[in-house]
Amino acid sequence: MEGNTAPDPAIHRMLHPRSIAILGASNDPLKLSGRAIALMKRFGYTGRLLPINPAREQVQGLPAHPRLAEVDGEIDLAMITLPADQVVEAVRDCAQRGVPAAIVGAAGFAELDEQGALLQQQLVDVAAETGTRLLGPNCLGMFSLRDKAMATFTSAMDGDFTPREGPLAFVSQSGAFGTFIFSAAQHAGIGISHFLNTGNEADLSVAELLGGLVELDEVHALMAYLEGVHDGPELLAVARRAHELDKPILAVKVGRSDAGARAAASHTASLAGEDAVFDGVVRQFGVVRADGMDQLLGAAMIFAGGRRARGEQLTTLSLSGGAGVLMADAASRHGLDVAAWEPEWQHRMAEVIPAFGSPRNPVDLTANLISDPGMLRRALQIAVEHPGSDLIAVLLGNADHAADELIGAIEHAYRSTDRPLVVVWTGGSGRPRERLRELGIPCFTDPGRAAAALGALAGYSLRPAPPSPQRPPDVDHKVVRAILCEARDHGRRHLDEHESSRLIAAYGVPCAGAFTAKDPHGAVAAARELGAPVAVKVLSRSIGHKSDVGGVRLGLRTDAEVRSAAEDLMDLEPDVRLLVQRMSTGTELIVGIKRDPAFGPVVVVGLGGVLVEVLADSRAGVVPLDAASAKRLLTSLRGSGIFAGIRGQAPRDLDAAADAVARVSWLAHDLADELEELDVNPLLVDDRGVVAVDCLAVLR
Amino acid sequence: MEGNTAPDPAIHRMLHPRSIAILGASNDPLKLSGRAIALMKRFGYTGRLLPINPAREQVQGLPAHPRLAEVDGEIDLAMITLPADQVVEAVRDCAQRGVPAAIVGAAGFAELDEQGALLQQQLVDVAAETGTRLLGPNCLGMFSLRDKAMATFTSAMDGDFTPREGPLAFVSQSGAFGTFIFSAAQHAGIGISHFLNTGNEADLSVAELLGGLVELDEVHALMAYLEGVHDGPELLAVARRAHELDKPILAVKVGRSDAGARAAASHTASLAGEDAVFDGVVRQFGVVRADGMDQLLGAAMIFAGGRRARGEQLTTLSLSGGAGVLMADAASRHGLDVAAWEPEWQHRMAEVIPAFGSPRNPVDLTANLISDPGMLRRALQIAVEHPGSDLIAVLLGNADHAADELIGAIEHAYRSTDRPLVVVWTGGSGRPRERLRELGIPCFTDPGRAAAALGALAGYSLRPAPPSPQRPPDVDHKVVRAILCEARDHGRRHLDEHESSRLIAAYGVPCAGAFTAKDPHGAVAAARELGAPVAVKVLSRSIGHKSDVGGVRLGLRTDAEVRSAAEDLMDLEPDVRLLVQRMSTGTELIVGIKRDPAFGPVVVVGLGGVLVEVLADSRAGVVPLDAASAKRLLTSLRGSGIFAGIRGQAPRDLDAAADAVARVSWLAHDLADELEELDVNPLLVDDRGVVAVDCLAVLR
Repeated sequence: MEGNTAPDPAIHRMLHPRSIAILGASNDPLKLSGRAIALMKRFGYTGRLLPINPAREQVQGLPAHPRLAEVDGEIDLAMITLPADQVVEAVRDCAQRGVPAAIVGAAGFAELDEQGALLQQQLVDVAAETGTRLLGPNCLGMFSLRDKAMATFTSAMDGDFTPREGPLAFVSQSGAFGTFIFSAAQHAGIGISHFLNTGNEADLSVAELLGGLVELDEVHALMAYLEGVHDGPELLAVARRAHELDKPILAVKVGRSDAGARAAASHTASLAGEDAVFDGVVRQFGVVRADGMDQLLGAAMIFAGGRRARGEQLTTLSLSGGAGVLMADAASRHGLDVAAWEPEWQHRMAEVIPAFGSPRNPVDLTANLISDPGMLRRALQIAVEHPGSDLIAVLLGNADHAADELIGAIEHAYRSTDRPLVVVWTGGSGRPRERLRELGIPCFTDPGRAAAALGALAGYSLRPAPPSPQRPPDVDHKVVRAILCEARDHGRRHLDEHESSRLIAAYGVPCAGAFTAKDPHGAVAAARELGAPVAVKVLSRSIGHKSDVGGVRLGLRTDAEVRSAAEDLMDLEPDVRLLVQRMSTGTELIVGIKRDPAFGPVVVVGLGGVLVEVLADSRAGVVPLDAASAKRLLTSLRGSGIFAGIRGQAPRDLDAAADAVARVSWLAHDLADELEELDVNPLLVDDRGVVAVDCLAVLR
Repeated sequence: MEGNTAPDPAIHRMLHPRSIAILGASNDPLKLSGRAIALMKRFGYTGRLLPINPAREQVQGLPAHPRLAEVDGEIDLAMITLPADQVVEAVRDCAQRGVPAAIVGAAGFAELDEQGALLQQQLVDVAAETGTRLLGPNCLGMFSLRDKAMATFTSAMDGDFTPREGPLAFVSQSGAFGTFIFSAAQHAGIGISHFLNTGNEADLSVAELLGGLVELDEVHALMAYLEGVHDGPELLAVARRAHELDKPILAVKVGRSDAGARAAASHTASLAGEDAVFDGVVRQFGVVRADGMDQLLGAAMIFAGGRRARGEQLTTLSLSGGAGVLMADAASRHGLDVAAWEPEWQHRMAEVIPAFGSPRNPVDLTANLISDPGMLRRALQIAVEHPGSDLIAVLLGNADHAADELIGAIEHAYRSTDRPLVVVWTGGSGRPRERLRELGIPCFTDPGRAAAALGALAGYSLRPAPPSPQRPPDVDHKVVRAILCEARDHGRRHLDEHESSRLIAAYGVPCAGAFTAKDPHGAVAAARELGAPVAVKVLSRSIGHKSDVGGVRLGLRTDAEVRSAAEDLMDLEPDVRLLVQRMSTGTELIVGIKRDPAFGPVVVVGLGGVLVEVLADSRAGVVPLDAASAKRLLTSLRGSGIFAGIRGQAPRDLDAAADAVARVSWLAHDLADELEELDVNPLLVDDRGVVAVDCLAVLR
C-alpha cells in the first residue's frame, strides 16, 4: 500500500522559504536560539528574517517583533527556539498567523520520558488540528543553501567553513550523525542543496520530506539516514516518484544486524521494523542502500555527476597491473563485469601502451605513465570509443608532478563522453583529488570504494521498474467471503488447512487435490477418487500442531494403508477430521504473508526442505507484487541455483512460482484488514508448474 | 609442506645494511640511477654509501670507486642501477666481491618478452650458482627507515615528504601500487620500518623476505601485497613463525574473484594460484587477509598499537545513538559481539549520562557530550572497568572546539588499560584525528572501517594455533604400496573404486563394506554376506564414467534384485567387473585431494547432495591437517548448519568427519609425489560416525 504522492505545499514553502520567523530569537549568536540568525546573516539569507522576541526591539541588529501576530506579510516558516513547555502554544500562534510549517528544535519530548511523550502527543494533536506542519521536535532544523535559509542551530558551519552547494538533498533522522555525514560529504567535495533533520518525527517524516525534495529541479539525488521507518506507504510513494523522475534515493538504514536492531530499539522511539522488509522495498523500488557512511558518500559522489550506466561492463585503465586486478576483484563483488576486450580493441590499445603492459582489460598502462603522461590521453580516447565500456575507471597514484597532464587527459575524456568515468587516485598529496572534484569528476582514494560506488550506479541505472501489479481477474471473491464469514461466525482466528487452501485456491493458486473425511471409510473413498499415492492428515486449526502430534501420514498407496493411517489418526484426538490429499513432488518453496509495522502486509518467500534450515534464507516484498517482481524475489534467494534444476532435473517453472507468489500477494493486499498471517509450506514447483501442499492462515 | 624457517643471513644484512654499493651510480639526483644516493644523503643514511662509477671520481659529492672490486671492507648490499643487459655480469662482480645480496632495479626481464625471460633465467642461474641473493629484477628496491638505508628509486619520497618510522614492515610484489599503499599508509599516520618491492622475484620472494623481517625486534606486524604466491611452503613457514612471535601478517592478495584471477594471469608472470587455497592457508595459519587497501590500512592502524583482544565483545560509546547502531551493524558483520551490558553496569553508566541517553551498549552519550565533554572521561572510566569490554570504540564527530578535552579523556582511558580502544571521529577539520594518531591511538573516519579493523584484531587475537598434525599411527603402508605398485606395473593412472577405497581405508578412513564380483552369482553371494540393502556398481577406472553409462544400481534388497541388476550391468561393457557395496545413509560430504601450483597437495571439503549444487561451497586446506583444523574447515562451510542435524536428526558426528579429513590429508601428504587427485564423494556422516561410499584416485 502506498501513500500520497502530491507533496504538501507547506513542505514546498519550507524548502524554499521567502520569510522565516524565529520564535524566541536570542541576541546572542552563540546561543542555540541565536545561531540560526547568526548563520543567515553570515551567509546572506535571501528572504525576510523575522526575529520574534517580546523583550527586545532588536535581535542581532535586526528589528524584532514582540509577537508573531504583529508581523506583516506572508511567513513561510517559523523556527521555534523556545523551551519544550512553550512549544505547543507557539505552534498554535503559528497556525493562527497562517504559518504553514514550523521547526521545533527543543528536546524534552518522547526521547526523554513519559511526560515528554505526553507533551509530544499534544504536539501531534495540535499539528493535526491546525494543519500546521512540524519538523521535529528534538531536531537541528533545516537549511537550504540556494537561498541561504539556515533555519538550524547545527554546529556543522562552525569556524570559517563555507558550505558547498550541489545537487544532493539530505534528510537525516539523527541530528548528530547527520551532521557528521554532512561534514564528511562536504569534505569529500559533495555539494548539498538541503539538509533536514527530522528528530522525533512528531509530524513530518523522512519520507514525506523526500517527497517534497524530489520535486525540486535543483535536486538530482536524495540521501536519507534512517534509524527506523515510520510511514512505509509514504516511502513507497516517494520511491516510485523518484524512479519516475530518475532521481536516486541513497539510503543508510541502521539496525541491519540483529545486534543493531536491538540497539536501535533501545535508542529511539523508532520501530526498527524488520530490516528484511526494508531490504525488500529497496530491491522492489530501486532505492540504493548503503551499508554505512563511506558507501553513502561514495555513491553520492558518483550520483552527483548525474550520469547513468548503459550496462555493467567496466573498463579499467591503471598504471599498476596489480591495482587493476584489485579493482577487478572489487568490481566483481559489486556486480560489475570485467571481461577482457575484444581482440581488435586490444590491438588498438596495444598500439598506445608499452609492450610489457596489458591491453586486455583491466588495461595495464604500466608505471611508464609517470614519465609519459600523454599515454593516458591516447588510452582514454580508445576506452571512450570502445562501445562495451559502460563504465570507465582510471587508477592512478602519487605522481603529483605529472598531475596536471594526467588531469587534463581525464578531463578531456570525461567531457567527450556521457558514460560514467571515475578516478581512483591513491596516495600523494591529495591535491589532484581536490582538483578532479572541483572539475566535477568523481575521485576516490581506494579501488574498493570506487567499485562499490560504480556497482551502485550500474545497479540503479539498470534497475527494474517498480512493481505495477495487475489484479488477477479470476479471483473467486464469493468463496473468500464465505470462508472468512464462517470463521468469524464461529469466533475462530485459525483457519484449518482445508479452508486455508481454499482461500489461496480462490486467488488462483494451484492446490493439491484433497477431500476432507470424517472416518476411515471416507478416507479410503477420497483416496480412490484422488489416486495413489495420497497423504492423510489431521485437519488442525493451529499452525504446526499437526506435525507435533504426528498427525501426518505420507505416501499411502493401498486402501489398507489409507484405512490404517486414518484409524491411527482418529485415535489421536476426539472429533478429529481428516484431510486426504494427493501427493506431489517438486522443489520446496515457502510462501508466507506477515504483517510489518511500517509497511503492512508483506509477502515472504524462501526455499523449503533442507535449504531453509541450512541457509535461513528468505526475501520479503511489499504487496501487491507483479509477477516480474515476484520472480526477482525468488531469483534473489541465495539458494536460487536450485531453480535451474539440479541432478539432471529440468529447470523449475519459475514463471508459475512467481505467478503464485503474486496471487498470494494480492490476497495479502485485499485482506490487509482481515488477515494476520498465512503460510504456504511447501509450495512445490517442478518443471511444469506449482502446487500448494500445505497452507494455514490466521485472521486478525 | 612447509619451507625453511631460519632466514638467510644475507637477508638480515640487506634489511639493516651497514654499507651499500650503488653500481652505475649517477651524478644526477633526478635520474633513476641517482635517486637512491640523493635520498640517502637527504635522510642521512647511517652506514657507508659507496657509489660505483668507472667514469667519475665523485658522485653527488661522494667519492666514487671505478669497480666494486676496489672497495675496501664489507659490503652488505649492492644496488645495481645498470641496464638489463649488464646485470648478470654485475651480479657476478657482487658474488666475487662477497656481497651477499643485490637489488636489480632494471626492467626488461620476464615481464617484457621471451628474450627478457631468457635474461631472467640467467639471473636465476647466477644467483643459484653464486649464492648471491637478488631482489628483483623490475623492482623499486627497498628501504629501512631506522638506518635510513634508501636503496630505492621510489617516487614516494618526492617533495618535502618526511617518512614516518614505525613498527610495520611492508613487502609488495607491485612497485607502483605498493608505493601508493605506502604513501596512503603514511598519510594515515601509520609508521613503517621497511618497504621492499620484489618485482619479478627471480630469487627473493615476498614470503622469504617476510621471514627475515619477522625476526626483527622493531617489526611488530607485517604487511604484504601479493599478486600471486610463488613459494607456498615458505609462506607457511613464515606464517607459523609469525604466529609463534605473535606478529600478525596482514595480506592483500589480488585475484580473489574469477575476473581478478583472469586479469592477474594476464598481468604478471605470477601464478594467481587457486585463491581458495590461499584463503585456506590464511584460515589455517592466522594470516589477516584484507580485501583491499582500505582494509589493509585500517588493520595496520590498529595492529600498530600492539594490543590484543581477550574476546569478541565490543563496547561502543557514542555521542549519537544512530552512529552506535551503525557501529553495531558493522561490528556484527565483522564477527564481533555487541551484547547489552549487565544491568548493574548499565546502572553505573546511567549515573553519568543524560536520562535520554542509553546505558545499554551501544552506550548513547547523546549530543550533550559537546557541551559537557567531561562526561566522556566518566563514561570511559566505566567502560574500561567493565570486565566484558574486550574492545572499546568511541564514536565522535565534528566538535573541534571540544576536541582538547575529549582527546584528553580518550588518552587517559587509553593509557589506563591494555585493551584495544579505537576512536571514530567523523567529519570536522581532521585535526583531532591527527592528534589522536600522534598519540598512537587508532582513529578512523567511518564506523564501518573501524569495525572491520576491530574484527580483524579480534579474529587474530583469538586465532587457533596453526595445525600441528600427528601422523596417524595405524596406517597400513604395505597395502598402500601394494595398490600403487599394482597400478604402476600395469601402467595405469586411474585406480578403480575398490582400489581407491582400499587406499583411504589403509589410512583409517571408514569405507562402506564391499566385495568385488565377476558375475551375477558372485554379486548375490556378496550381497548376502553384506546384508541388504546393497548397491551394485560397475568397477570403473575413470572418474564419472560409471554414472555416465548408468553403471550404478541402488537399494537392492532381494537376491533377485541383485542378480537382475548384475546381469544388466554386465551387459554394459565386455569384461566388466562389479562392486557390491552395503548401502549407507547420512549427510553427504565431499572430500578431495587436488594439487595447487604454489602449495602442492591440498585437501578440499564441501557439502554434497543438493547443497553442493546450489551453494558451490567448498574450503581448501594445505596438508597435513590436524583434526582441529579439519573441523574448522568443515564448520566454515556456508551450509555447515546441516551438521547440527536438521529435521529432528541428531547432530552429525563432526569429530569423526574431521578425523577422516585429517587422515585423507596425511594420505595427500605422504603420497605427494605419487597422487594427482582423489575424490571421496560422498563421505556420509551421521550421528555415530562416517563412511566413505565412493572414492576414485588418479596417480601422477
